[in-house]
Amino acid sequence: MYTAALDIGGTKTIAALVDEKGQVCEKQVFTTDILDCDSHLNQCVLVLRDLFGKADISTSSLQGIGVSLPGIVNSEEGVLLYAPYSKWENVHVADYLSDRLGIADVFCENDVNACAVGEQVFGSGKKYSDFVWMTVSTGVGGAVVINSELVKGIHGFAGELGHLKVEYTNPALCPCGQYGCMEAQASGTAIDRVIQQKIKTDPTFANAFISASLKHNGAGCSDLARTGNKEALEIFERIGTYLGRGIAYCVNILNTQAVFIGGGVSASLDLMLPGVESAVKENVFNKLQGFDIVRTALGYEAALLGAAALVMRA
Amino acid sequence: MYTAALDIGGTKTIAALVDEKGQVCEKQVFTTDILDCDSHLNQCVLVLRDLFGKADISTSSLQGIGVSLPGIVNSEEGVLLYAPYSKWENVHVADYLSDRLGIADVFCENDVNACAVGEQVFGSGKKYSDFVWMTVSTGVGGAVVINSELVKGIHGFAGELGHLKVEYTNPALCPCGQYGCMEAQASGTAIDRVIQQKIKTDPTFANAFISASLKHNGAGCSDLARTGNKEALEIFERIGTYLGRGIAYCVNILNTQAVFIGGGVSASLDLMLPGVESAVKENVFNKLQGFDIVRTALGYEAALLGAAALVMRA
Repeated sequence: MYTAALDIGGTKTIAALVDEKGQVCEKQVFTTDILDCDSHLNQCVLVLRDLFGKADISTSSLQGIGVSLPGIVNSEEGVLLYAPYSKWENVHVADYLSDRLGIADVFCENDVNACAVGEQVFGSGKKYSDFVWMTVSTGVGGAVVINSELVKGIHGFAGELGHLKVEYTNPALCPCGQYGCMEAQASGTAIDRVIQQKIKTDPTFANAFISASLKHNGAGCSDLARTGNKEALEIFERIGTYLGRGIAYCVNILNTQAVFIGGGVSASLDLMLPGVESAVKENVFNKLQGFDIVRTALGYEAALLGAAALVMRA
Repeated sequence: MYTAALDIGGTKTIAALVDEKGQVCEKQVFTTDILDCDSHLNQCVLVLRDLFGKADISTSSLQGIGVSLPGIVNSEEGVLLYAPYSKWENVHVADYLSDRLGIADVFCENDVNACAVGEQVFGSGKKYSDFVWMTVSTGVGGAVVINSELVKGIHGFAGELGHLKVEYTNPALCPCGQYGCMEAQASGTAIDRVIQQKIKTDPTFANAFISASLKHNGAGCSDLARTGNKEALEIFERIGTYLGRGIAYCVNILNTQAVFIGGGVSASLDLMLPGVESAVKENVFNKLQGFDIVRTALGYEAALLGAAALVMRA
């Protein structure tokens, strides 16, 4: 039995049919129309109908629709309360899709929360009742699972891991307006900034990029680090230290079993791990050491699989 | 109907009879025999029997016994797994008291967790489903409540708020062996250390203590601050900043409604509040601002009332 999954991001949307094992069978990627929410939801309906046609299935044979959304979600009502990038507010996503497609079971969740549920259903989250899921991408987001349940907090904002302060002395400005947030020090954007600053001030470092024809960003620096370049390795270790500080706060407060790391930057987790591990050793209380730090098994489509998982878990 | 309550601390133990409203009716305080656990539990039984006699009640008319313990507790089994100060290990407290006193309902909990339950039953915790309870005393401890339930974590160690790192640049050594922990920067012990250091290096500050015949500790400095002494006020503001940083981590991760502060140092919360509030403003993500910071209404006997509350909540 198939589940329909929508991962509506700030830039692009993925619609897919996913089977019980988490295999994506039909998929379409399209631009998110952040200017016109109604038009975009209509587009989602058209794309899903198209996928149903391609797979030759009727809506009555679907298990349901899962939707991951880029913002604050009232998951009981299936309402996107607020999306910071698009400024969408109070969008009744579940009702809309349910009415238009004639499918009763529509489940909505914030994207990082959906990733955590995806990890529980399809990934290695099955073995953990208490864990944190951290996405390190353009920004840094988080989800908290305790006793196998998502923690929402009193207004649905729990898991703002990206705004944990990890640098007080020489902090970078965060898009949120504060300083020294994990998002300002250890996101993909932060890595690019650090690399570009170093390229400007360190000619040897700059030349290493030129000789290897590498882009002046995290991916380029990652390639450079893998050749053994000391400065590139140090940058990732420093970023890892910041992630480790943020992880330590979570573990000291919650005594979690595991921390999952997803998002594009997690491709360089091996390079960051020395920094993460030394920060964890220095900052996690002795009795709480020994938890697992795991790169998500869900890959780049974690939020899409998470959307499908919302239905399967229900 | 009375509840019997035991607050077994690292230094002293309080045994009491508590009524349904949280009034302490009979009470006895005695030294905790940390060298001999069996002997101390026997002493607890004798003191409780003495209180039952004084109140002229039989054990059959008791609602139960609640016990707050200074360490890691398996509350389902009523076992003190480990107490850091006394080195007690695997003590079957509930079974012992139940057998010796013939009372079936004996509930045990870690002391700070008991405080949080006390706040729910007798204090202003009634109005909050999601809160953090922080005790600032010789050390700093914490408890986390989500959806009105205590969070225990995977090994029962959740709420190690005292070991959240709040100072990375010039951190003080913590008894745990790490540096910059909230316990090392903002506990009663830390306040005393900061004051004594300043007295050594600042003759004007030292003279202010001498002229007012004040002790060289937190209580003395608090009295001095209340006369308007700028340096004394700055010390409490700085301590408040550290507490505010720790509070900010909790709120960013959990989106809590309230943070309760108890313990001896909470008597100076008003002096620390400017520091707490500015740190919260700088470090809590915008959407999560507006939670309550409350001094516990339970006073110095929070853990004792918490012990009674364990029974009443059951």
